[in-house]
Amino acid sequence: MQAALDRPNLISLAAGFTDNDTLPVAEVAALTRIIPRDALQYGTTIGLPRLRHELLRRWQKQDDVRRLTADDVIVTNGSQQLLYLLTEVLCDPGDIVLVEDPTYFVYLGILEAMDVRAVGFDSLANLKTKIQKLKSRLKLVYLVTYFQNPTGHTWSLEAKREAFAIVKHYERAAGHPIYIVEDAAYRDLRFEGDDEPSFKVLDPRNERVAYTNTLTKPFATGIKLGYGILPPELMRAVLRSKGNHDFGSANFLQTILARALAEGLYERHLPKLAAAYRRKRDAMVSTLDATFPASARYERPQGGLYVWVELLAHIKTGAKSRLFRRALDAGVLYVPGEMCYGKDPSRPIPQTSMRLSFGAATVNEIKKGIRLLADALS
Amino acid sequence: MQAALDRPNLISLAAGFTDNDTLPVAEVAALTRIIPRDALQYGTTIGLPRLRHELLRRWQKQDDVRRLTADDVIVTNGSQQLLYLLTEVLCDPGDIVLVEDPTYFVYLGILEAMDVRAVGFDSLANLKTKIQKLKSRLKLVYLVTYFQNPTGHTWSLEAKREAFAIVKHYERAAGHPIYIVEDAAYRDLRFEGDDEPSFKVLDPRNERVAYTNTLTKPFATGIKLGYGILPPELMRAVLRSKGNHDFGSANFLQTILARALAEGLYERHLPKLAAAYRRKRDAMVSTLDATFPASARYERPQGGLYVWVELLAHIKTGAKSRLFRRALDAGVLYVPGEMCYGKDPSRPIPQTSMRLSFGAATVNEIKKGIRLLADALS
Repeated sequence: MQAALDRPNLISLAAGFTDNDTLPVAEVAALTRIIPRDALQYGTTIGLPRLRHELLRRWQKQDDVRRLTADDVIVTNGSQQLLYLLTEVLCDPGDIVLVEDPTYFVYLGILEAMDVRAVGFDSLANLKTKIQKLKSRLKLVYLVTYFQNPTGHTWSLEAKREAFAIVKHYERAAGHPIYIVEDAAYRDLRFEGDDEPSFKVLDPRNERVAYTNTLTKPFATGIKLGYGILPPELMRAVLRSKGNHDFGSANFLQTILARALAEGLYERHLPKLAAAYRRKRDAMVSTLDATFPASARYERPQGGLYVWVELLAHIKTGAKSRLFRRALDAGVLYVPGEMCYGKDPSRPIPQTSMRLSFGAATVNEIKKGIRLLADALS
Repeated sequence: MQAALDRPNLISLAAGFTDNDTLPVAEVAALTRIIPRDALQYGTTIGLPRLRHELLRRWQKQDDVRRLTADDVIVTNGSQQLLYLLTEVLCDPGDIVLVEDPTYFVYLGILEAMDVRAVGFDSLANLKTKIQKLKSRLKLVYLVTYFQNPTGHTWSLEAKREAFAIVKHYERAAGHPIYIVEDAAYRDLRFEGDDEPSFKVLDPRNERVAYTNTLTKPFATGIKLGYGILPPELMRAVLRSKGNHDFGSANFLQTILARALAEGLYERHLPKLAAAYRRKRDAMVSTLDATFPASARYERPQGGLYVWVELLAHIKTGAKSRLFRRALDAGVLYVPGEMCYGKDPSRPIPQTSMRLSFGAATVNEIKKGIRLLADALS
């Protein structure tokens, strides 16, 4: 893949990068015209109080609750770092994490590096069976709940309620807490339909849901800040660990983001972004409709960055497949679906899907890329 | 300590924070007047090429060499993150790291969290004995080589040469690489005397020295970037690990720092900083001279942020000591020396020293704080 990325003119529908044209260049320049002195000084491990306050208020508004305080909010280097920290403090080598099948492949890399086993589930019934069987070593259930990476699927509140009840039920027999880590990184990248409440609304005593999100994916990924709303016990452990990692994210970035929120810049930016991504999604889906075989299955996502395409069983999409090679030769790159599955020996890894991102490519690149892919397919 | 920090009017000679008045507020605002679009986009795990190029050139100049390329340079979230990553990739639980006695206490926290044993040495002869004895589980030697935290001591090239020869000699019998991790975080905070070459000059084939440094401690800690110059094998492992942690530091910060270096702002800032810290060091040392008992031992550091004071054996300085309590009651905080020693059962932890920082406090606070400490002592 690195070799591929080094090729100029390659159309990448692989990387989950974000739209370049809507980056808030002038807005960020305006926010840094006057820099408060404390923005250039060290901060604290948990993060800048005024940013955590803004993040709490925004979440309270989204989930229509009045709970918790800014002390329940931590700021991290992208939500990626928080996923790392949570897994580090909750899991020992040999432990198990339940993930959606398929799931965010970078998270699978974290688990592998920590010698933690990723076990996938593909329905609520299946979640129940797996929890029942694996509960003794199960420490957390990792769910990407909005416009999932890679499928684009969004969890309904009903499904969340059911999953939460299952986890609660088996936790008793497990003899230790089982946390739900809700990765809401794409929540603000909705361009159609209505927002759904998060798992946090099902956990009024703030005991079992670790909510992770980022404001920089929908604003400016180069500012790279994530945040979490965590149960107090988990917060203490994560703070100890973040203290060792870097004792706090850059105060300068936090100051900029706090102002972007407080002054409404962030909220005003979202509709621009939504319009850009909607156009790109439309370009991708309509070109798929026009060029891909009728047997290909995919949905029309209402947000996020991805379209997940499943092909017939005899068409392999893997990094070593003829299709992948053909596509590369033609100048287009996708993420082979096989990368998005944990190494769970209880089922073969599906080989016939691809993750297509409409985040970074332009509308023209998307149309051309899909056509090239369709050619490679036929 | 948290309780103490919550008290207003407390004079903290404890935290290693940096001078507030010299923070380059106007300079950073100027650097962000025009923001290149790619500064707001994702970057790569290893870091921004133009920043790594500037960092390499600066190091080559400091060490008067022409070696290596920007591919040997990685950018991290402060040098703290790099210390974490290096230790994570090199050590397994139960392994041993040799550290100076005393050493940077936050690094001891990293080792403890990873179940790695910190063993201290206090002379080159002692380093030799310890390596010989412990080599089979010894993975790295951690050295703060410029204005050490906490003692203010700077390693001479002679001492480095001898230490490097000792490590090389016993590495053969160890049967695995033993790396020197050189923490040069205070190198640019010199306000008197001449720079010393780093350990890297002793490792022309770039095999065994991991050099870590930061440009944001002498510039603006709120920008929080560190960097390392690493042997290729170690670089590959650290990149894999950083990929899991956060897949790269914020591009926006890297863009600012690259420009501060390229435009000479960083170099022009250093003498201002040196002048401010020289004044503060003078205020601290002259007040110590005037008020502390003649039996107190301390040196006059030529850089960095710390004065290390050793008292008579019957005067305990620990967090539970009468002196610490008295000092707190009087409104002044220091770091008890006992925090700076690894839990090595082969020697009792020294109890009679204190680390005093002249970084964040003003000249008047420093004078008043030392006087209050002297009162508590008498």
